[in-house]
Amino acid sequence: MSKRIPKRSQKAGLPPGTPMYIGDNPTETAHITIIHYSETELEEREVEQLEECFSFKDKQTVNWINVDGLHAGVIAQLGHCFGVPALVLEDILNTHQRPKLEGFDGSLYIVLKMLACDGSHQDIIIEQVSLVLGPNYVLSFQEKIGDVFNPVRQRIRNPKSQLRQNGPDYLTYVLLDAIIDNYFLILEMMGEQIGTVEDELLSAPTPQTIKTIHHLKREMIYLRQSVWPLREVITALSREDTPLISPITRTHLRDVYDHTIQVIETIETYREMLAGMLELYLSSMSNKMNEVMKTLTIIATIFIPLSFIADLYDLNLYWPWGYLPLSLLMLLVGIGMVVYFKRKKWL
Amino acid sequence: MSKRIPKRSQKAGLPPGTPMYIGDNPTETAHITIIHYSETELEEREVEQLEECFSFKDKQTVNWINVDGLHAGVIAQLGHCFGVPALVLEDILNTHQRPKLEGFDGSLYIVLKMLACDGSHQDIIIEQVSLVLGPNYVLSFQEKIGDVFNPVRQRIRNPKSQLRQNGPDYLTYVLLDAIIDNYFLILEMMGEQIGTVEDELLSAPTPQTIKTIHHLKREMIYLRQSVWPLREVITALSREDTPLISPITRTHLRDVYDHTIQVIETIETYREMLAGMLELYLSSMSNKMNEVMKTLTIIATIFIPLSFIADLYDLNLYWPWGYLPLSLLMLLVGIGMVVYFKRKKWL
Amino acid sequence: MSKRIPKRSQKAGLPPGTPMYIGDNPTETAHITIIHYSETELEEREVEQLEECFSFKDKQTVNWINVDGLHAGVIAQLGHCFGVPALVLEDILNTHQRPKLEGFDGSLYIVLKMLACDGSHQDIIIEQVSLVLGPNYVLSFQEKIGDVFNPVRQRIRNPKSQLRQNGPDYLTYVLLDAIIDNYFLILEMMGEQIGTVEDELLSAPTPQTIKTIHHLKREMIYLRQSVWPLREVITALSREDTPLISPITRTHLRDVYDHTIQVIETIETYREMLAGMLELYLSSMSNKMNEVMKTLTIIATIFIPLSFIADLYDLNLYWPWGYLPLSLLMLLVGIGMVVYFKRKKWL
Amino acid sequence: MSKRIPKRSQKAGLPPGTPMYIGDNPTETAHITIIHYSETELEEREVEQLEECFSFKDKQTVNWINVDGLHAGVIAQLGHCFGVPALVLEDILNTHQRPKLEGFDGSLYIVLKMLACDGSHQDIIIEQVSLVLGPNYVLSFQEKIGDVFNPVRQRIRNPKSQLRQNGPDYLTYVLLDAIIDNYFLILEMMGEQIGTVEDELLSAPTPQTIKTIHHLKREMIYLRQSVWPLREVITALSREDTPLISPITRTHLRDVYDHTIQVIETIETYREMLAGMLELYLSSMSNKMNEVMKTLTIIATIFIPLSFIADLYDLNLYWPWGYLPLSLLMLLVGIGMVVYFKRKKWL
Amino acid sequence: MSKRIPKRSQKAGLPPGTPMYIGDNPTETAHITIIHYSETELEEREVEQLEECFSFKDKQTVNWINVDGLHAGVIAQLGHCFGVPALVLEDILNTHQRPKLEGFDGSLYIVLKMLACDGSHQDIIIEQVSLVLGPNYVLSFQEKIGDVFNPVRQRIRNPKSQLRQNGPDYLTYVLLDAIIDNYFLILEMMGEQIGTVEDELLSAPTPQTIKTIHHLKREMIYLRQSVWPLREVITALSREDTPLISPITRTHLRDVYDHTIQVIETIETYREMLAGMLELYLSSMSNKMNEVMKTLTIIATIFIPLSFIADLYDLNLYWPWGYLPLSLLMLLVGIGMVVYFKRKKWL
Repeated sequence: MSKRIPKRSQKAGLPPGTPMYIGDNPTETAHITIIHYSETELEEREVEQLEECFSFKDKQTVNWINVDGLHAGVIAQLGHCFGVPALVLEDILNTHQRPKLEGFDGSLYIVLKMLACDGSHQDIIIEQVSLVLGPNYVLSFQEKIGDVFNPVRQRIRNPKSQLRQNGPDYLTYVLLDAIIDNYFLILEMMGEQIGTVEDELLSAPTPQTIKTIHHLKREMIYLRQSVWPLREVITALSREDTPLISPITRTHLRDVYDHTIQVIETIETYREMLAGMLELYLSSMSNKMNEVMKTLTIIATIFIPLSFIADLYDLNLYWPWGYLPLSLLMLLVGIGMVVYFKRKKWL
Repeated sequence: MSKRIPKRSQKAGLPPGTPMYIGDNPTETAHITIIHYSETELEEREVEQLEECFSFKDKQTVNWINVDGLHAGVIAQLGHCFGVPALVLEDILNTHQRPKLEGFDGSLYIVLKMLACDGSHQDIIIEQVSLVLGPNYVLSFQEKIGDVFNPVRQRIRNPKSQLRQNGPDYLTYVLLDAIIDNYFLILEMMGEQIGTVEDELLSAPTPQTIKTIHHLKREMIYLRQSVWPLREVITALSREDTPLISPITRTHLRDVYDHTIQVIETIETYREMLAGMLELYLSSMSNKMNEVMKTLTIIATIFIPLSFIADLYDLNLYWPWGYLPLSLLMLLVGIGMVVYFKRKKWL
Repeated sequence: MSKRIPKRSQKAGLPPGTPMYIGDNPTETAHITIIHYSETELEEREVEQLEECFSFKDKQTVNWINVDGLHAGVIAQLGHCFGVPALVLEDILNTHQRPKLEGFDGSLYIVLKMLACDGSHQDIIIEQVSLVLGPNYVLSFQEKIGDVFNPVRQRIRNPKSQLRQNGPDYLTYVLLDAIIDNYFLILEMMGEQIGTVEDELLSAPTPQTIKTIHHLKREMIYLRQSVWPLREVITALSREDTPLISPITRTHLRDVYDHTIQVIETIETYREMLAGMLELYLSSMSNKMNEVMKTLTIIATIFIPLSFIADLYDLNLYWPWGYLPLSLLMLLVGIGMVVYFKRKKWL
Repeated sequence: MSKRIPKRSQKAGLPPGTPMYIGDNPTETAHITIIHYSETELEEREVEQLEECFSFKDKQTVNWINVDGLHAGVIAQLGHCFGVPALVLEDILNTHQRPKLEGFDGSLYIVLKMLACDGSHQDIIIEQVSLVLGPNYVLSFQEKIGDVFNPVRQRIRNPKSQLRQNGPDYLTYVLLDAIIDNYFLILEMMGEQIGTVEDELLSAPTPQTIKTIHHLKREMIYLRQSVWPLREVITALSREDTPLISPITRTHLRDVYDHTIQVIETIETYREMLAGMLELYLSSMSNKMNEVMKTLTIIATIFIPLSFIADLYDLNLYWPWGYLPLSLLMLLVGIGMVVYFKRKKWL
Repeated sequence: MSKRIPKRSQKAGLPPGTPMYIGDNPTETAHITIIHYSETELEEREVEQLEECFSFKDKQTVNWINVDGLHAGVIAQLGHCFGVPALVLEDILNTHQRPKLEGFDGSLYIVLKMLACDGSHQDIIIEQVSLVLGPNYVLSFQEKIGDVFNPVRQRIRNPKSQLRQNGPDYLTYVLLDAIIDNYFLILEMMGEQIGTVEDELLSAPTPQTIKTIHHLKREMIYLRQSVWPLREVITALSREDTPLISPITRTHLRDVYDHTIQVIETIETYREMLAGMLELYLSSMSNKMNEVMKTLTIIATIFIPLSFIADLYDLNLYWPWGYLPLSLLMLLVGIGMVVYFKRKKWL
């Protein structure tokens, strides 16, 4: 669990603006790729030396520099080159940020969360993605090498794609869209798990069932925390009074906003469903207990008195004439109890 | 359950604006009907060839084109003819939209949910309806052939109906009204089910009862999710600063708004009622358990000590003078226990 | 329960503006009374022929026409005479309206709920009241003949009353005040029932107690639904930018608003109290169960081992020297168990 | 409980503005004191004849008339003299008001609640206080003779106090401050009771504990209802656009506002604490039950099979060679059961 | 617990503005340090005589006077020298303030809470910190000598730090940042405790577990109460229309705001997690009980009837031919019960 709890303690006391990695995936090196494109041109490059990036700073149209791995040194240099303020660099390196939008002179900084699930399909891995949108560039920073942006790369390679005809703001929108589309994949996976657990719950609940529900509820708390502020971010982005974002991108952002709302609503629905399942579990437990107790009570209430009467037979060693009345009494008590339970509708 | 979970995964990675059907009712073909009317004219037609529609684009007053079955090709062509943007076409085909209102140059796009219940009267089927309102046309898109719009068709055929004297905005209002009136039918049906379950709960609850309550709660979650955003949509529609909507239609939209609020409130009331029923169930379970346990405890507490004393009779084989005191003791213990339970009000 | 669920299905598919009674108290005839008054005049009349009303339309100062019984024909005619639009007439006849305020040219339409309790003092009966305020008249519509407006009639008959010196807006205020004052009567009655149930709960709860609490909670849901929107209505009424309402009436409306808030708060308080009582009930059940189980456990735990030892006496038939140790063992076990329970604080 | 439920029924049907006492402390007479002061003067007087008050109406600077006991006649006369409108007089006499602020020509009317606890330190007594602030006077009305304002009187007697240098608005502020300071006393008392109950709950809960928690929760509901609207009142008071309130008083009102917020937050905290305690109680009950049941199950599960085997010894009367195997079986079963429970961690 | 409840009673009745310490850490003396610095200068001093401070009042750039220990006399004198109003001095001395921001002529007063945890790492200690920001000074007041501000002192000593190049507003920001950074330390500690308790809960819950959860929930209530209003304070501070705060500080305050939001969200997440753990505990209790009861029921239901039959062997003393049928019956009942439980899936 501890991985979920922001560990900022390393940093307490340091002056603000100190670039320092805070997170669980420290990296030795950063993996950088550059895509430079316009309507007619396309250049893709894997960067070996950080300095290669600097030349792209002044190239026209769109330069997309993607950094996988949050390496403090690399990011500081890159940020310095592109004029990213120290406070923003600090935020990029701190993986415990809330999703937010910040404008600094002529650029926009967006931080949000990317979701993935680990191999065992049980835990959701939350990774931070930072985007810096400038007049002719987009910088994107991921914690680890990922494949969420691959379809975007494919589309850039297609010379007829809309991406090629638009600026870096459109690229930013497409990246946001790719990330949020990815949320739906995760939600579907969660939805299937919820469906499986519910079937289990309705057919044959085990103590493990309740632990799975608890686990899913927990995951939902983290999901919600990651996605909820995104609503605000997208709203702010589409309202931001900046020449960076063209009208056509604003129109598309409305679409992203709709998707974000839908993700949030789905999470809320799942939370309600899980809460309902917990209630169902508790009441079915209560039901079963009732049934168990009835069985015990019926058996005990019939046989304990009968046993007592049978014990009294020992008397008969001395008063042998008592057999018949005792046997009759035994029969009567037995029948009486059965009738009593029938009337109570326990049998 | 899986049907309730938006499956968008097919689409992740595709460029936005790609028209592609997303939903559970893929269709081979679309069934198209056209009604063209004005105060004096009326023309109804079942469309065989899509091209027939195109001529209506420029006809005056009201052209209502209804498409049953979301066929990507058909919708793309139709949209192209009437100038519907690609993003809107994408939304029409994606049946996992939230209800929303969107304006694009000179037209309005409304998406909302239609409710039906399947034959077994247990599940609510949620279907998406899209309306596109233009200056002289209304396009309506349903997932399947339905009968909710039939009364509207009847009214159009009546030359004296208000519909004939008003424009496409009024038709849009009437279609919305028909859909929301239909919600009341579904709510009544749900209300009756809730009533039945409650009677069952008060008279003779079974473990099935709780499953039905759980099922109804679940349906309510989906209902609410479908209806809740409608409030916003209707408000936006009546406030939209557009010449498309006449003052008289705005007045009537206020009425639709009232009905929407009433639907939402009824759903909330049902949710509260179901929550109350769950509580009642749990406390009646608790009650019953108490009663069962009391029975067991009374019987066991009276007869276990008596049995013990009877066991001691075996002693009498050796000390025969012990009969009387033991019998007295047995009597005393029996009476004592009964008195004890009387005082505890268990008997 | 079914009576609480709006039944609108009869109407689905009809064109809006069709006047048709929707509710549970269909009526054969409407009972109409007219009071015409000014500072100096007073005329009261029971109307036999609907046409008698029409002459009052143009009389100066205040004409109050009260209709008991929602008869579609009568209301249509009356509405036609006083210029009430069809949509409003439809709302008057539909008894499943939410409380609301609507302005139409030069008049105001107010719909709200009147509360009564049936003879057995168990159920709250919710009745719809509609008021139409015009420049020189007030129309009031009730579902059944009631006595809530009688004190208002008394005050009109008093030539010195404020009513006689003010216009129809003041009369409207007085009618609203009478209805809301009546809410307090109902709330008091509910409060007394809640008090009775709580006393029962604290002294001797029965399974019936929990059903009564459930019933009261249910009633509260309906009450809240009826009263909650009234807040908005009164606010809108006192803010409505209309010459119909004089400054003095506005001042008095503030008072009505205060009362409405107080009614709402009382309902919320009752809801919280009922929720608290349910919790108390469940924990007292849990308590009792604990006590019952302790009794059983103590008895069983003492006597089952003792019985076992007593059974071993049968051995003594063969090894007669075992009596003494077995008796001692029995004594020790008995004392040990009692000491154990004492230490656990169960005895 | 009944004392908490507003009894307005006596009044239903009366015309608004009728001064009539509504509450639980009807009084035969009112006890009136007058303090007239300025920076240099000070005159205190107990009023025998109501008429004595009238002369103070035109005296300059500050006249504080305090009325203990809501006597309809006295208040009507006094109100008439100081120009208080009938609707306000009605509110002063109705002790079931929500806290509110009302302005009438040139004066302000404030109603709020005063808290006290009865001798047994169990129930909170809620009393209504009304303040009327005019240009040169403050009228204060309490239900009963109280001592909350005594420190204020002391401070007035001190010629150097700030009170003597300020107008009636400052006096009003000081009176409000005295009342709200008093809330803290009550909250401390409640806090101590909550602390005591919690200690009891953690050490040795009894069924009485849960009733005390229920009682405290109930008191909190009433407290909250009394204090919550005060926030709005103080805000309105400090924003009221009136020459009656000087800038210095406005500054001090901000302080009163802070205290009100703190009272409200403390009440919410207590409510949460009580809710947490209820949960703790229920889970500790559940725990205990588990423990009790385990004891029973262990004993019964060990000895019932052993008793059965012992019963089989009776066979030995006929097959005497069966002793040894049966004794061994008994031993094995006994040991087996103990091992089983050890593995289940019940022992 | 009592330490958490504001004790204001000592003060009830005193005139407002009376400087008097209210809290749990009364102090005999105050420990005062002064740091006077500018870009080039640096002077640190421990103050022996209060008068030493006064000379700093008119020194340019930044004078930071830190007071540890809330000594009424010292604070009154210091406040008098720096022109702090009496009401603010009263607030500094009252340690039960809510976090708030107040502006008085040319200065700002900020009160907030500092968190620490006591040695046993169980309880959170909440301490009040007050900051007064003037044109050339910052006054800070703590209840006890603490080390949270030490890193700030370190940074001031570094001549190249940003602190040395900025004014007192920047110092204020750095102090706020240090306090809020400290919150993260406390939250991490809490997070680890929550993690430990959850592991315990999933592996081997004990009654102590639930008490720890209750304790943590309680701590969260206090934490939330301390941190929640801070959001408002920081917002107000960055919006305050005052020349005291430079644009660069405003930029940094946005960062502090983000951290505050993150602290609040973490607290809410912890609260939800603790609530989820309680539910898990209750359902695992319910599970265990079910298992225990099943064991008991199985054993009792098999052996009680068998014992009864065995008792009947005593009959055989008289009818010796009954052995075989009874033995068969015993076998049948035993097998039947096992089959019954198998079918009920209890075995």
